[in-house]
Amino acid sequence: MNDHAFQLHERLASDCRVIADLTLCRVLLMNDRRFPWLILVPRRAGLRELHDVPAEHRVALMAEIEVASKVLLEQLGATKINVGALGNVVPQLHVHVVGRRAQDAAWPAPVWGFGAAERYEDSELDQLSEQLRLALGVRG
Amino acid sequence: MNDHAFQLHERLASDCRVIADLTLCRVLLMNDRRFPWLILVPRRAGLRELHDVPAEHRVALMAEIEVASKVLLEQLGATKINVGALGNVVPQLHVHVVGRRAQDAAWPAPVWGFGAAERYEDSELDQLSEQLRLALGVRG
Repeated sequence: MNDHAFQLHERLASDCRVIADLTLCRVLLMNDRRFPWLILVPRRAGLRELHDVPAEHRVALMAEIEVASKVLLEQLGATKINVGALGNVVPQLHVHVVGRRAQDAAWPAPVWGFGAAERYEDSELDQLSEQLRLALGVRG
Repeated sequence: MNDHAFQLHERLASDCRVIADLTLCRVLLMNDRRFPWLILVPRRAGLRELHDVPAEHRVALMAEIEVASKVLLEQLGATKINVGALGNVVPQLHVHVVGRRAQDAAWPAPVWGFGAAERYEDSELDQLSEQLRLALGVRG
């Protein structure tokens, strides 16, 4: 399911660590230790809105949202998932899958636009990336 | 596709006007004139997270998000769609489909938690509800 014209938007590349490619989406970890926060980017060029995802890829997208959600719930202490496709700033379609806890910094408000990101240490980011790859069943 | 145990959460009922039932979802109009804002509530009891939607209903959910998005884009002046399933306050699964414009009150921030709703006049709400039912192809 490769689209050779696909290129990750530079803003996503700079705010996130790339974790893995699933069947449809590139999985990113938002570099913000306040929230366990994944972003799914369908690897198809030119998608902007959620409904731009072609019908034949929608089941895969929902399945990958489920996989990401369960990793956050089962391995990273989330008790609630927030899913959002906004794209007001970065036009490339990307789906936020954010693990929330009743004690987190923004609860119960949304995480988008809430304060400033707190970056992980490089070593934490390496370790978390590896944990996520294992949980997603992909090789680093 | 009826689930007799389904009942709309009272908070959604009080914040919104019920527009119509599509195949899977009840369509609500958020009573906030700042943004053209629909909410889709799958009519299945006990759903909380997006991934709780059973596999056999996911294609319908994506199709109904598309229908709602296109009504906002084609009839209500939206130029961008924000889709979100949060549920931090109201636990019943509901999917926000919000029409955005670069000039709107919150742009480019998300609408959730942004200021206070500005209610429609009753007559506006009646007229908009009727317009939405026609656009969705359902009878009032």
